[in-house]
Amino acid sequence: MNIYDISKQAGVSIATVSRVINGNTNVSQKTKDKVLAVINECGYTPNAFARGLGLNTMNTVGILCPDSSDPYLAKSIYYLEQMLRQNGYDVLLCCTGYELSEKQNYLNLLLSKRVDGVILVGPNFIEVQDAKNEYIRLAAKKVPIILLNGTLSGENIYCALCDDFQATYDATNCLIKNGITDILYLYNSNSYSNKQKLDGYVAALADQGIPYRKEFVSYLTGDLQCVKEHLISLSRTGLDFKAIITSDDHLAVGAIKYAKSQNLSIPSDLSIIGYNNSIYAECCDPELTSIDNRLETICKNCISTLMGVFSKEPVPLKTIFPAELVKRETTSF
Amino acid sequence: MNIYDISKQAGVSIATVSRVINGNTNVSQKTKDKVLAVINECGYTPNAFARGLGLNTMNTVGILCPDSSDPYLAKSIYYLEQMLRQNGYDVLLCCTGYELSEKQNYLNLLLSKRVDGVILVGPNFIEVQDAKNEYIRLAAKKVPIILLNGTLSGENIYCALCDDFQATYDATNCLIKNGITDILYLYNSNSYSNKQKLDGYVAALADQGIPYRKEFVSYLTGDLQCVKEHLISLSRTGLDFKAIITSDDHLAVGAIKYAKSQNLSIPSDLSIIGYNNSIYAECCDPELTSIDNRLETICKNCISTLMGVFSKEPVPLKTIFPAELVKRETTSF
Repeated sequence: MNIYDISKQAGVSIATVSRVINGNTNVSQKTKDKVLAVINECGYTPNAFARGLGLNTMNTVGILCPDSSDPYLAKSIYYLEQMLRQNGYDVLLCCTGYELSEKQNYLNLLLSKRVDGVILVGPNFIEVQDAKNEYIRLAAKKVPIILLNGTLSGENIYCALCDDFQATYDATNCLIKNGITDILYLYNSNSYSNKQKLDGYVAALADQGIPYRKEFVSYLTGDLQCVKEHLISLSRTGLDFKAIITSDDHLAVGAIKYAKSQNLSIPSDLSIIGYNNSIYAECCDPELTSIDNRLETICKNCISTLMGVFSKEPVPLKTIFPAELVKRETTSF
Repeated sequence: MNIYDISKQAGVSIATVSRVINGNTNVSQKTKDKVLAVINECGYTPNAFARGLGLNTMNTVGILCPDSSDPYLAKSIYYLEQMLRQNGYDVLLCCTGYELSEKQNYLNLLLSKRVDGVILVGPNFIEVQDAKNEYIRLAAKKVPIILLNGTLSGENIYCALCDDFQATYDATNCLIKNGITDILYLYNSNSYSNKQKLDGYVAALADQGIPYRKEFVSYLTGDLQCVKEHLISLSRTGLDFKAIITSDDHLAVGAIKYAKSQNLSIPSDLSIIGYNNSIYAECCDPELTSIDNRLETICKNCISTLMGVFSKEPVPLKTIFPAELVKRETTSF
């Protein structure tokens, strides 16, 4: 007997059952009585410890993310926490950093806390080398694992993501159709998702008969200053580029800082397209054209999938949403 | 017997005990044996449920924040989560929104989960009307409550904060000493902290013999566009201002957008000072002069206070840090 069965039997939502259990006053007396009657009837003890011991659930979901202060990941956590709470689940948050060994440690830590499920937030959990993802498949033997913007095949693993390949393919195509063919590509991680983005860029060039030049692609980490300096040194080598697509808005803001330092006018001298449509995109000047990967929609999908798994309903293994190019001031189209 | 006693008896840090319990491999065999010997000797069962039942601690700290996607709050959560983890504590995260009733509900929810302590993140938890803060004092009868950038007197309530009054006092003074006396002040919340900031602005004007004009002070919520439009309509009323101090970087970025829309040059026509020294400050153009309220230091202080309370050491009720004005491109000094 768990919160789902109670909600079903009482004919109210899980959120309502949760509210009653937690003594929230936003419930009518009638509904409260109905829920409490079912709870009493079935002997359900709404106490975290008793629940944990007797019914093997803490009604807790673990969220793992590399860095909760990254604006994109912070927004994900915000959506997920709200949606989980609405469904009567608590959130145990772990910030893992970007090291594989730490991710493994934290995932095992969450399992030892007997969470009901785990959400891995952001593409950085999936390594291109598949053997390195085995610890996730092992964890999925114990609890359902949801990947937010990541993809991995395996039993009890569910993915909700944006079509990153198509997104950068379309963005690159858009630039080419506007007569811009010298396009830099900057990325800051080797995750599966970032590989897809890079592949989209490469495929768009190929389909338009534009040769791929590896000096046009840079792997870059570090702050805005680093990005700016990297671009200055690239341009000093005589490389001529008219546009920059990045795997992340932060890199794109660095590109704007570069353009400003060289007195380049945006977008006439240099077009810039970011990725994530995060707060960076509206803060900077000129405001950034950015690929929106539908974070809120993806988060909703993650939660409805997880709730479906908990209540043993059939759920999709993988759901892919299309991205959207949000046009602002760093492109002329 | 809890994790502290074990750490004491084994002569290792709490983090090490936690690592051993959680099967983390970053511990030498010798240390591991020593910790396990103490654990076995005292009959400590390192299982979340058993711990909860038998020892009345889940080694979990609740973090309440209004909105985990706000960059300042996101950064706080990031620091706190890491520091708590290092001390062997899990984080139960709740995002409450800004409504008082919801804050009350979530705090009670955390208490029902038997957390060992609660950290209230951000100044928005403390209402100027003291009666509205009574629910926090009630909660403090059960577990220690730590206020991060808030202040409230009461038993078992501990505060770590920045001297917001002095910060805006100094910033306002700085402008006045540079010959700028027509200074707008924009704020976006009625928290105690924001009242301190406003008082600092008012006091600096008074001390320099500049009359306070209430049309120079605006309470503003909403996005960048709203801030921009509000300033445009203010200037259309004929109000002449040469500087803007804001209670938050987001408002300051809105002020930059306003200046740009009116072809005002920054800082010669308009100086702007933000608050928080968040990522907004570096993203925007020109980059924002902002008051840094030492978030990492404050977070560290919160955690060391909480750990002190847990281990029954004497700890300060209130710790106040000075802010620092980080000068960038929106001021001429």
